[in-house]
Amino acid sequence: MKIAVLGTGMVGQALAARLDELGHDVIVGTRDPEAARTRDESFFAAHPGVGLASFADAALAAEVVLNATNGAASLAVLDAARDGLGGKVLVDVANPLDVSAGMPPTLTVKDTDSLGEQIQRAHPDARVVKSLNTLTAGLMTHPGALGRDSSVFVSGDDAQAKEVVSGLLREFGHTDVIDLGDITTARGTEMWLPLWLRLWGALGTPEFNLHIVR
Amino acid sequence: MKIAVLGTGMVGQALAARLDELGHDVIVGTRDPEAARTRDESFFAAHPGVGLASFADAALAAEVVLNATNGAASLAVLDAARDGLGGKVLVDVANPLDVSAGMPPTLTVKDTDSLGEQIQRAHPDARVVKSLNTLTAGLMTHPGALGRDSSVFVSGDDAQAKEVVSGLLREFGHTDVIDLGDITTARGTEMWLPLWLRLWGALGTPEFNLHIVR
Repeated sequence: MKIAVLGTGMVGQALAARLDELGHDVIVGTRDPEAARTRDESFFAAHPGVGLASFADAALAAEVVLNATNGAASLAVLDAARDGLGGKVLVDVANPLDVSAGMPPTLTVKDTDSLGEQIQRAHPDARVVKSLNTLTAGLMTHPGALGRDSSVFVSGDDAQAKEVVSGLLREFGHTDVIDLGDITTARGTEMWLPLWLRLWGALGTPEFNLHIVR
Repeated sequence: MKIAVLGTGMVGQALAARLDELGHDVIVGTRDPEAARTRDESFFAAHPGVGLASFADAALAAEVVLNATNGAASLAVLDAARDGLGGKVLVDVANPLDVSAGMPPTLTVKDTDSLGEQIQRAHPDARVVKSLNTLTAGLMTHPGALGRDSSVFVSGDDAQAKEVVSGLLREFGHTDVIDLGDITTARGTEMWLPLWLRLWGALGTPEFNLHIVR
């Protein structure tokens, strides 16, 4: 598939590298492509098949768009990519974390709204699926590294879009994809972050995931 | 041990029955003991070893006190039991759920405070441990029913109190007790509830638990 990954941070690079390795046609979207090519030279040298473009051009070129930007910037980034999002599967991987008051961060929306819903409202023609925001980048893309089954989630209003995303998750190696329901269930996975952050503190590593045992 | 279980709801009854079965000296605390003996006649008939008293008398008689009341009532109940809480291990099992706006409920405190912290502040001489608020009553007390390892958490400022609670959890059959840190980490487990509630909806049963795979 032709997939745009918006964001060149740790999450964006992990997703782009893995999708490229799996044979997808990957283009990374960023604010300033030339600056990114210089700054992330070693990444693009290691992944010559991965393209680089503006947020708008990357989204326009893709069938599936992944939002891997910082949660605080996501709405502005997606607004810049607006023309490329209509009808597309838009996977929101970001979390609405507020780091301004120190660590651990709090959430800017919770309980009565979510970043996933904000994105769906801002882009009613996009088919938003919240997913992969519940674990660290390395395990998003290589869950098998844990050596045991663990769970990931999809939330969204479009059943077919959730099927597309679930297929990509299985390509990554995820063995337990739980469909939570419509996009409002993104509140659940975003509000998992406060426990995830404290587990990181207690365990001394972000290399863990939850498995829903039932 | 002499253990008071405050609350006669599903959680209180499950905890009292299990602790009684394990050989502890259990007394249930409630607002009106005579009314409870009539209302919950079959429970007390099935567990003749379990005592029944007012909140205050139950707490006074115990070494360890479990708050198994509705989260919306917990602060008032513990205030009524105040004289019995000084120096005691006080296990807070409740969640600060607000059901007034419909289902799924929201949380009355989150991110910058928690019910566990509110209770610790209201009872500075009690040794508050937040635990068991992350799963359904039947699995709190019989985690082995899942047939696989799953995780529970302890949060509190008193290391020795957390050891006492961890010991009780192991008696119940819990094999993975994670110490998250001080009582502020109760924010993490309380904020797990929104995902737990949506998983209940998606799975059609509350008979699940999370396992932290690492």
